[in-house]
Amino acid sequence: MKIVAYQFQGLRGLGVVDDADAIIPLAETDPGLPSDLIRILESPDGLDRIRRTSAGRRGSIALSDVTLKPFLGRPNAMWALALNFKTHIAETGLTTSPDYPHIFLRTGASFVGHREALRCPPPEVARAFDYEGELAVVIGRAGRHIPPEKAFEHIAGYTCLNEGSVREYQIQNRQFGLGKNFEESGSYGPWLMTTDEFGDPARQRVTTRVNGVTRQDSTLDDMLFDVAHVVSYLSEGYCLRPGDLIAMGTPGALKPGPNDADGRDMSKQYGPFKVPGLVHMRPGDLVEVEISGLGILANPVTDDLPREYRAAVPV
Amino acid sequence: MKIVAYQFQGLRGLGVVDDADAIIPLAETDPGLPSDLIRILESPDGLDRIRRTSAGRRGSIALSDVTLKPFLGRPNAMWALALNFKTHIAETGLTTSPDYPHIFLRTGASFVGHREALRCPPPEVARAFDYEGELAVVIGRAGRHIPPEKAFEHIAGYTCLNEGSVREYQIQNRQFGLGKNFEESGSYGPWLMTTDEFGDPARQRVTTRVNGVTRQDSTLDDMLFDVAHVVSYLSEGYCLRPGDLIAMGTPGALKPGPNDADGRDMSKQYGPFKVPGLVHMRPGDLVEVEISGLGILANPVTDDLPREYRAAVPV
Repeated sequence: MKIVAYQFQGLRGLGVVDDADAIIPLAETDPGLPSDLIRILESPDGLDRIRRTSAGRRGSIALSDVTLKPFLGRPNAMWALALNFKTHIAETGLTTSPDYPHIFLRTGASFVGHREALRCPPPEVARAFDYEGELAVVIGRAGRHIPPEKAFEHIAGYTCLNEGSVREYQIQNRQFGLGKNFEESGSYGPWLMTTDEFGDPARQRVTTRVNGVTRQDSTLDDMLFDVAHVVSYLSEGYCLRPGDLIAMGTPGALKPGPNDADGRDMSKQYGPFKVPGLVHMRPGDLVEVEISGLGILANPVTDDLPREYRAAVPV
Repeated sequence: MKIVAYQFQGLRGLGVVDDADAIIPLAETDPGLPSDLIRILESPDGLDRIRRTSAGRRGSIALSDVTLKPFLGRPNAMWALALNFKTHIAETGLTTSPDYPHIFLRTGASFVGHREALRCPPPEVARAFDYEGELAVVIGRAGRHIPPEKAFEHIAGYTCLNEGSVREYQIQNRQFGLGKNFEESGSYGPWLMTTDEFGDPARQRVTTRVNGVTRQDSTLDDMLFDVAHVVSYLSEGYCLRPGDLIAMGTPGALKPGPNDADGRDMSKQYGPFKVPGLVHMRPGDLVEVEISGLGILANPVTDDLPREYRAAVPV
């Protein structure tokens, strides 16, 4: 089952995507369901209710006619892993603990949805604005002290995530802080695919493309700490909650081909590590994160809003 | 003005504390006000409305009869500063950038309110469970690219904060991650004191006491990066939102007196740095964070829940 948050003709809603890429609007099939996916996940039979109300129906709105939004509103926590793929550890030259996942946090405001624009800082602020194609886990059932073998019982599903990072800010001090939390610098989507449909994440692969050129491509079994381990680890100290998200880390850059001038030109890399095949995101780019068996998250990159004092929430 | 979130006879509400330590319940004086303080702050005249509806009234519920709760529900971001007081930098022996604040994030679930219990991990999990007495800033008005001289226009008020930290987890890897986010490991409160009443934070001091013994005591002008600077810095990349919290960092340990056996005995310190006058929090302790001109945040310390698998949200 693929669950989306969408905007259509000015109205927001949740829906299930059918086999013909049409949306079954939950507000029509089950008006009693909350409009916030986290509230639905908080109910023990929430996902079952979505499944029942959409079973056998055909969608009434074409997926191509809507704007998809981030389907998690304001979860309690959006965890992320640094240095969790062996190829990424190698390319950065950094070390990480072999015993404990390398964990930091992002906020909801740092993410947009599928096809929404990622905001690239202007060059005088930062030039190393980097994609990180990742698998993200969405918690469905609360839990503390979850043993790895029970981890999957607590997962509602998965999504694609671009953990967009402003490297200059990320390395200003030891904690990543603001560099991983620029406004609308990352994205997730296009949908939440439930565990029953996605199956074992380790069997799938993540691919990142920039303007059609593949820049990352890795199986999801290359993780230092796998999904079950990370869920279990976080629950040692924290009660994972419905709607919490865990971004599982990104693989290293793919070696550039002989004709890939952009990928071979390392003189235009401004981040803390320079590797062949890494390019920064720039306004005008289209960045796609694909996870096999799940879908493609695509985002254009646009300029950040002008650098002027604004006493208002962005749209 | 002092704004509290309280629970009284099973019901939750927001209120203003009068001069006689009695609560004026906002649900009675202005039933149209949202029950969530963040929603009120999001309205341009929200704080003014609280001020108008409580002006000249006497409270009807004694502060001592209620349970105070964390007054921010689920803000978009709870920022925190590492190594922001010169005395704390010195005692840890760590370095920090002189140019950029050292920023990380906490989640709402890591905090309890005034007089609620802090949960201490059992000794086999961690023994260095440390208090960090801090000033916390609460954002009242959204803003991006806020110049330092306009920072105070974006602040709703201040509160006391205990940035309780599980040191063993904090140093498992380079990012603090879980060690700063154990369930109910920190606290803030007792109330939000509005900027007009609190005045300039730099003129005040923060004091932390454990079982009545003063363990931290510092003026708030010892910060490497002051409130206005940090607000401005975060807004370079992120649109600060009403209800966002910024924990401004903690000072170093106070040197123990000649008869202070606990403070002088460094053999019972298990954290990454050992200094005279530092004690860990243990079940049975009472920990107080006082900020002059603001109030006292007091929390008993209790055992964490048993280390057993739980598929449920904690109360």
